[in-house]
Amino acid sequence: MSSSLNLRQLDASSADFEAEFQRLRHWSAEEDHAIEERVAAILADVKARGDAAVLEYTARFDGLSADSMAALELTREELKAAFDAITPPQRSALEAAAARVRSYHERQLAASGQSWSYRDTDGTLLGQKVTPLDRVGIYVPGGKAAYPSSVLMNAIPAHVAGVGEIIMVVPTPRGEKNALVLAAAYVAGVSRAFTVGGAQAVGALAYGTATVPGVDKITGPGNAYVASAKRRVFGQVGIDMIAGPSEILVIADGTTPPDWVAMDLFSQAEHDELAQSILLCPDARYIAQVREAIDRLLPTMPRAAVIRASLEGRGALILTRSMEEACDISNRIAPEHLEVSSAEPHRWEPLLKHAGAIFLGAYTSESLGDYCAGPNHVLPTSGTARFSSPLGTYDFQKRSSLIEVSEAGAQVLGVIAAELAYGEGLQGHARAAELRLKR
Amino acid sequence: MSSSLNLRQLDASSADFEAEFQRLRHWSAEEDHAIEERVAAILADVKARGDAAVLEYTARFDGLSADSMAALELTREELKAAFDAITPPQRSALEAAAARVRSYHERQLAASGQSWSYRDTDGTLLGQKVTPLDRVGIYVPGGKAAYPSSVLMNAIPAHVAGVGEIIMVVPTPRGEKNALVLAAAYVAGVSRAFTVGGAQAVGALAYGTATVPGVDKITGPGNAYVASAKRRVFGQVGIDMIAGPSEILVIADGTTPPDWVAMDLFSQAEHDELAQSILLCPDARYIAQVREAIDRLLPTMPRAAVIRASLEGRGALILTRSMEEACDISNRIAPEHLEVSSAEPHRWEPLLKHAGAIFLGAYTSESLGDYCAGPNHVLPTSGTARFSSPLGTYDFQKRSSLIEVSEAGAQVLGVIAAELAYGEGLQGHARAAELRLKR
Repeated sequence: MSSSLNLRQLDASSADFEAEFQRLRHWSAEEDHAIEERVAAILADVKARGDAAVLEYTARFDGLSADSMAALELTREELKAAFDAITPPQRSALEAAAARVRSYHERQLAASGQSWSYRDTDGTLLGQKVTPLDRVGIYVPGGKAAYPSSVLMNAIPAHVAGVGEIIMVVPTPRGEKNALVLAAAYVAGVSRAFTVGGAQAVGALAYGTATVPGVDKITGPGNAYVASAKRRVFGQVGIDMIAGPSEILVIADGTTPPDWVAMDLFSQAEHDELAQSILLCPDARYIAQVREAIDRLLPTMPRAAVIRASLEGRGALILTRSMEEACDISNRIAPEHLEVSSAEPHRWEPLLKHAGAIFLGAYTSESLGDYCAGPNHVLPTSGTARFSSPLGTYDFQKRSSLIEVSEAGAQVLGVIAAELAYGEGLQGHARAAELRLKR
Repeated sequence: MSSSLNLRQLDASSADFEAEFQRLRHWSAEEDHAIEERVAAILADVKARGDAAVLEYTARFDGLSADSMAALELTREELKAAFDAITPPQRSALEAAAARVRSYHERQLAASGQSWSYRDTDGTLLGQKVTPLDRVGIYVPGGKAAYPSSVLMNAIPAHVAGVGEIIMVVPTPRGEKNALVLAAAYVAGVSRAFTVGGAQAVGALAYGTATVPGVDKITGPGNAYVASAKRRVFGQVGIDMIAGPSEILVIADGTTPPDWVAMDLFSQAEHDELAQSILLCPDARYIAQVREAIDRLLPTMPRAAVIRASLEGRGALILTRSMEEACDISNRIAPEHLEVSSAEPHRWEPLLKHAGAIFLGAYTSESLGDYCAGPNHVLPTSGTARFSSPLGTYDFQKRSSLIEVSEAGAQVLGVIAAELAYGEGLQGHARAAELRLKR
């Protein structure tokens, strides 16, 4: 572990930069046909047999047997008991994080989640009614990547949006429950929770069973089986994004202590071998200092092996000609997490077009945002920040257009609509408009 | 055509209503494996060979041969010539519709598409930056269902949202161009347009070719090949919803002239045989009047055969016990278009939870909304209004979280984040937070 890290360094001004950059960006989740077929079969079985199928798959895949689905439901008392059993600092941290996440999403709801309408001078009303989803399902991974923070980040925006019922599913392999996950469910106000996972849990939420209520939308991360199942039930229910490996991109102007930046790169790399950490900086000396910090700090990290594999496999230190060029390159990557580790973050922020979350200034480590700053940590990955957004209250609402045409308005609109409808060969549309005209 | 229509009538108070209602609601697009495989092959080919592949498929499927993709681009001059060539009433109608659609979407942008931020007392800034997509693609069907109104409804919200470039694709089988579609593209301010369609056009937009610029999101309706291709490129680019057959549900209190309601049901049924038209009403006498109007008016409709097939196959007149029950049943269906044809539409509107667009009062025929009232006519179908929304400016924007933690804020947040990160076994996250603490 003490040998120096083989972390690639690119120079944006060199002739072969473009080719190396393309290789760095390349990541694609190849479809695994074996997984696809197994997931299709599991979903069909859950749709057909409901609880019985979910119980069988839970016994087979999670080594957890039960006589009935009801026995796999976590009661409110059990969630509370988990909350009472964790340490007081853990309780305080969960509650403080939940309060900040709630407060941020309340602002979000106020800013972009309200109904609105206006009237034309002829009395015609136009608007949009915004309403919460009735019932949503939250998938929480179990096993090695059991993250209580994800429970907060999925359940709280749904709660703030006004969702009537929040159903959590979390696999508990061999019955092992994660107390922090259960405590987080208690703090976040999850309505009901079941210890099931995998494609069978997604199927239960999408189709409903005798015991598990069918939901309108499923959010939350999961393994390849869960991702495949979510894709397949999309349409029947809504889903959030399908997440790829996590990424951090740091734009540094050289004013942040190099150890801080090195640790921020680690904090992404430690997630898994496919995670990606990139530094963009116009200062070659500073890049060398960060590299030195990486080599010095890596051996002190409990997850050093994962960090090393991630940094060597997908990480990069990139020397740019300027901070402006660093911003351009960042826009091409459209990173999930973007740190602007600069003394002048507000000078560069307007140049940044595509990113899931933008962390401004040296004190804003990504990890503060991951847990408790308030904004959501469920963010678009793999360049999808070009067209998609953090999970938010808007994901737990939907909109309905409102149209009330006045008698006077119908005289004007009817003529326009009829002209266009006849042009499209839709006479029923035209005549429905014409019937409202006074001749 | 003169024989009376076999339109089913249900009674919500009868014992077998639930079973009949379930049959009525049932619609599912079965996956067609042959289409899936052909689309996968076309997309792979377009990804690998670009323009050459698009040209070959266009020649083969659309009977349109060209030496180069550049020859398949519609110039701005050609769009303007089409606009100049249509009739003056058509020009006026297109421009009036475009102005109203633009005005509505400007309100939408102002109501829900603005960046926002706030500061904590310790100086920490939290917010969300809203930015337009760089470049989007709009798929416009050609052939029998060529709808200029769809060009307006897709391009204008993108334009209002601030999208930099709007690329339209529209198949022109055997080179036949629809003048109204081209004129609508001119009015809506499409940036570039190509006469290609099918899965090959979706592939060209998703991957980019030497001639067709790659986009960030693809919207617009299409046939089964287009829908399959959009599903497959989702992730590489964003997509809008995958639309099912169109639907109208009318809740009537018996005060609207029956002919108006009959024509509104026709205006949905005339789209295609799978379209669905449903009337909910607590007044049996009124239902009989609407049925009489349907029988009387149907023979006068140019598209009578399609209307008959649609109404007999999927239509229904449903007698309810009350207007409240009609609203409940409507919520279970979550219709694409919902007319509240009542003298008191604002009494019932608050009871309506799930619908793509709600048309209030007797004068508000769905067709006015389809063309020119202002709100979008691209709406969620097949019950997906439970969790999704009309196409809007929000579909052409994305959000980035903004976080700037102050030095003082980092002291508080760092302790919380470190506690939770250690609880999740992510020491890098914890130490990145701790490095910002003053000891």
